[in-house]
Amino acid sequence: MTARARGASSWPSPADFAGPPPPAQLAEWEALDRVARPARLRRLRARFGEAGVDAYFGVRPEHMRYLTGFRLGSGEDKVAGQSGQFLVGGEEVVVLADSRYTIQAGREAPESRLFEVYHDLPSRWTELVASVGARRVAVEAAFVPHSVWRALESAAAEVELVPVEGWVEADRATKEPAELERIGAACAVADRALAALLPRIRPGATELELAMALEWEMRTSGAEALAFDVACLSGAQAALPHGAPRDQPIAAGEVLLFDFGAQVAGYRSDMTRTLFVGEPAERDLDVYRLVARSQRAAIQLLEARLAEGAALPTGREADAAARSVIDEDGRWPAYGHGLGHGIGLATHEAPSLGRSAAAVAELPSRTVFSVEPGIYLEGEMGVRIEDLVAIDATAGRLERLTRFPSTPIVVGR
Amino acid sequence: MTARARGASSWPSPADFAGPPPPAQLAEWEALDRVARPARLRRLRARFGEAGVDAYFGVRPEHMRYLTGFRLGSGEDKVAGQSGQFLVGGEEVVVLADSRYTIQAGREAPESRLFEVYHDLPSRWTELVASVGARRVAVEAAFVPHSVWRALESAAAEVELVPVEGWVEADRATKEPAELERIGAACAVADRALAALLPRIRPGATELELAMALEWEMRTSGAEALAFDVACLSGAQAALPHGAPRDQPIAAGEVLLFDFGAQVAGYRSDMTRTLFVGEPAERDLDVYRLVARSQRAAIQLLEARLAEGAALPTGREADAAARSVIDEDGRWPAYGHGLGHGIGLATHEAPSLGRSAAAVAELPSRTVFSVEPGIYLEGEMGVRIEDLVAIDATAGRLERLTRFPSTPIVVGR
Repeated sequence: MTARARGASSWPSPADFAGPPPPAQLAEWEALDRVARPARLRRLRARFGEAGVDAYFGVRPEHMRYLTGFRLGSGEDKVAGQSGQFLVGGEEVVVLADSRYTIQAGREAPESRLFEVYHDLPSRWTELVASVGARRVAVEAAFVPHSVWRALESAAAEVELVPVEGWVEADRATKEPAELERIGAACAVADRALAALLPRIRPGATELELAMALEWEMRTSGAEALAFDVACLSGAQAALPHGAPRDQPIAAGEVLLFDFGAQVAGYRSDMTRTLFVGEPAERDLDVYRLVARSQRAAIQLLEARLAEGAALPTGREADAAARSVIDEDGRWPAYGHGLGHGIGLATHEAPSLGRSAAAVAELPSRTVFSVEPGIYLEGEMGVRIEDLVAIDATAGRLERLTRFPSTPIVVGR
Repeated sequence: MTARARGASSWPSPADFAGPPPPAQLAEWEALDRVARPARLRRLRARFGEAGVDAYFGVRPEHMRYLTGFRLGSGEDKVAGQSGQFLVGGEEVVVLADSRYTIQAGREAPESRLFEVYHDLPSRWTELVASVGARRVAVEAAFVPHSVWRALESAAAEVELVPVEGWVEADRATKEPAELERIGAACAVADRALAALLPRIRPGATELELAMALEWEMRTSGAEALAFDVACLSGAQAALPHGAPRDQPIAAGEVLLFDFGAQVAGYRSDMTRTLFVGEPAERDLDVYRLVARSQRAAIQLLEARLAEGAALPTGREADAAARSVIDEDGRWPAYGHGLGHGIGLATHEAPSLGRSAAAVAELPSRTVFSVEPGIYLEGEMGVRIEDLVAIDATAGRLERLTRFPSTPIVVGR
């Protein structure tokens, strides 16, 4: 039975979802980060031996926050110079900051030593590396520009740079309980915002207006930022795997796809709902039901393995469980993208769930990822349903962090 | 005489500033970009000979748009893979895109050849480079990560990578008339938004609320995006060279600094106004007047040189003209940052105006930059006034693109 059949009163209401975290909660998460950082650093340092390095130089903003507590806003890394970049030695952590950022670094990264530098890192590189007693430094090669690498290399012949990739990313895939709480809080902000938007969706409103209204709901009700720009795609546009909201009115009889997420205390959410504007066509409802069934299949596989205490599936197995439902049905082609992705300080992070995910790597635990199958009929319509789920093998438990219902919802009638 | 003395009716009104550009204007700018791209590419190719290269590989989003027309949203480069990256050969331009972006690339970069690639650029590198008949490729070394550089290097021993920096940046410092028009339109959106906000500023509103309200004004009245996050800093906070709006109420007797900008058709604005909340202290007004005088001194130097048809000043001379007014007054220290920066597709670009700018490089023409002196009294208050000005040596003309008045304005009474 669709929401339409039950009438509009069965729509989820904003009050169905948790409110924004109060200041005391935000303060507690900050305190828990401080408590967690020594263990995060131990995991990183445990990699030093095998790689033959005695320090780690990081520049990725997510890693700054994770390992030192220092925070840059979205896009701020482009103007922050070297501020927030850090060197983890065997004993201590050094955070770089120019004069604009020294006060902030002292406050947010109190366990780190501050190293003032202003666009002159190469000339100070020997001094910096020597200050932690290092000679061979692992460097985030996927994030350090080639010109910076060359400048550091020329600056100190006695310091060896070792390109490394994915170390902190792999560690970040396993989540602490307080990280999951924040992702859950970001999910609730997004759930609530969409519930608040439902009664305001009318044929004639433009995709752009609805995207802005949803953004505003999130940002005035607990989101410190968006996880990414809101996608609002109607009708045939919903079949595009990538598309920005247009200055074009939505119409009755079309699907309306929202893909959006909030950021709370640094952590992000990501969800997709495909709504029906006015009377849905039977074919469109069938597509929707099949996508929902595909999503359930992946979640049931995960739940079954967790309940048995068996090995967790790989990301590829989870993808296959969802994909095979659509393939076996045979009426429409399954999604061309992957089933899902990890999420946390970044919107897309490990683990990856898809056909090209490693065949042998079982999912980590505790972790959180999206489950987002879809069916896209080019030139006609598209449906995607995306929820975040957290899994905990020790507790034998899967939790759906996205609480917004995934039954078909009709709006604008 | 302050605005306060004249009464609130003398505040600028939103109607004082140009409205958002109509769709026909946006279409015209797109057409003019298409017309301008061959000359932009000629300027780039003119650098090939001296550097001994026969192609240019670019990855910076601003350069994609400038040279090919392909557009990525802010931060989208992090998820777009190689989409939008491009290779300029002697005769043609090739734009990379994965399946999510091929339709967009065909539409936005119609003069370029499309090259489909999905996370496998190294394995296709030889083919790509050979397709434009190149052997030595200039590469944007300040933007290509070291790991990508290594992968390309290993992929094709017969292709030589030549690290280059600042080529397109230097070309972009000189602006086409239609680029200046768009920056002017972005200035008008910002001017108008602040004018609309003035009557709504009251003691008790928080910095965060006011920053959000100003953002909303811009984004619902012509801005396709912000140029950067709105800074709204009150009282002692305004003395911070870098600061995010807080969830704290503003109070009467304090200064209130807004630093903000809009983006229109890809081009950005940047302005700062420091308002007075309620009755200003005489000292604070004196600081304000001195900053305004400092700004005028730099603009007068530029105007004098333009009128004489003399060589344009260097960025360092312009900075010295403004700085010396504050230094010679002697009551308060001059700003620690530079006087200004170029602006266009990026918020900060060449030319640079400051103490460390090149001593011999005169400002280019036509160009546009901010003039933003300030005085910061730590723990007490700060004042900055920032306008964009465009200069055209051939026309002997300076135009203030920021039209919002820079006389003292009192709000919240």
